[in-house]
Amino acid sequence: MSLAAATGVTATGPDRYAASIAPGWDILGNANGGYLLAIAARAASEAAGGRKPATVTAHYLAPGKPGPVTIETNVEKHGRRFTTVRATMSDSSRPLVSLLGSFTDGLVAVSPVERIEAEPPDMPTAEESIPVIPTETFPPPFMEKVELRLHPEDATGTGIPRYRGWFRLPDDEPIDSFGLLVAVDAFPPSIFNAQLSVAWTPTLELTAHIRRKPEPGWLRCQFTSRFISGGYLEEDGEVWDGSGRLVAQSRQLALLPPG
Amino acid sequence: MSLAAATGVTATGPDRYAASIAPGWDILGNANGGYLLAIAARAASEAAGGRKPATVTAHYLAPGKPGPVTIETNVEKHGRRFTTVRATMSDSSRPLVSLLGSFTDGLVAVSPVERIEAEPPDMPTAEESIPVIPTETFPPPFMEKVELRLHPEDATGTGIPRYRGWFRLPDDEPIDSFGLLVAVDAFPPSIFNAQLSVAWTPTLELTAHIRRKPEPGWLRCQFTSRFISGGYLEEDGEVWDGSGRLVAQSRQLALLPPG
Repeated sequence: MSLAAATGVTATGPDRYAASIAPGWDILGNANGGYLLAIAARAASEAAGGRKPATVTAHYLAPGKPGPVTIETNVEKHGRRFTTVRATMSDSSRPLVSLLGSFTDGLVAVSPVERIEAEPPDMPTAEESIPVIPTETFPPPFMEKVELRLHPEDATGTGIPRYRGWFRLPDDEPIDSFGLLVAVDAFPPSIFNAQLSVAWTPTLELTAHIRRKPEPGWLRCQFTSRFISGGYLEEDGEVWDGSGRLVAQSRQLALLPPG
Repeated sequence: MSLAAATGVTATGPDRYAASIAPGWDILGNANGGYLLAIAARAASEAAGGRKPATVTAHYLAPGKPGPVTIETNVEKHGRRFTTVRATMSDSSRPLVSLLGSFTDGLVAVSPVERIEAEPPDMPTAEESIPVIPTETFPPPFMEKVELRLHPEDATGTGIPRYRGWFRLPDDEPIDSFGLLVAVDAFPPSIFNAQLSVAWTPTLELTAHIRRKPEPGWLRCQFTSRFISGGYLEEDGEVWDGSGRLVAQSRQLALLPPG
């Protein structure tokens, strides 16, 4: 099943959509956060008249399990350039994800001002990188829903809280804004590479900025955590396309379970 | 008027609060975004039973002018550690700010895992730094509501989209979580230092993570923009207290007006 199909939503009433959390998108039984965000954002995008995400924030309220969900939306403002929408995705018993996002058709008249202070991560080609192959245990079955290849230096436990790697969808499914929402949460938590004896880091909040539609092909990604302290950590993501342009930026706040 | 007073909210009904945008918190007539966020977050915090912001996101829908506002809140989930709340702040005619946040009493059992990959910015003392003195025009009157001192290197137009400096509240008002929400949006836009002929950069969305309560005294701040392109720019903020600890982290997505 394509990502487009696995995130499909159907309008069932005013400000109300139905969708399904598809099986296989889980990590140890709980659906991947970027995947849940993509479903909720697709409903919110429909509520925004088909405008696409520019910046979306999800707060994760409860783990998502395969099965039907509903998304209630509320358009806060429909402006000339942006439509701001709230959405809450719930299963039959409780809310799972709360979303706030602004959606756009694209910035028609774009400022010519440009200044880039960063480069895409320097990496071997995707062919020279290390595929993440799903197993029954770890890495989890979710990894067959996306194609990840890790920078060889980052595939073996560097002690540095960073993953660099390549992302694409199976069967070369084109990556749209919703695919980018999956890309920003598809890699293993960067803290895993720091070898700190942390087994899981539940996400409290994830914000993604979608900067532009990517060129077809592999996306070049980098995820880093700089402040692992006081029970929290942030993870910053950058996603670049084959033309060398930043297509998405993300930050999440995750929790360190008490030791 | 203290920041605490200028962001005060009064419950006026179930899930409904009244507040006022105080005069003088504006920049060319429009209230500062961090100040508006602090008002909305204070109402949401009340709705969360007094829990304090851990991560809050604001989308800015319309400029705020001095005068009465109402904040409608909705508790999405009241959990053991976090309460997630939506809030919409409106004036008499339209919504101004849409907020989504998670609030906490603090993490009681905190993971001992710690790893910090960054240092506070290296700066001369606050006494050796350059005060930002408000004028009738620029810098705007808002600057008398906060005390800012810029790193001398950053006070003269470096060509680099970065500001480093010190922040405190006048009369040494203690800085709580809501004060930190003001701190993350109090400095001039970092793009102004890049000398790119950009006169204003309206904020579409601002997310702040509050990591801990700061020690009393000046806060050490750094704001940078790395991707100024395609009509958007992000600005990343870090706020450190006198003990050398990160107390808040922020990112905003702002718009470059068409040239």
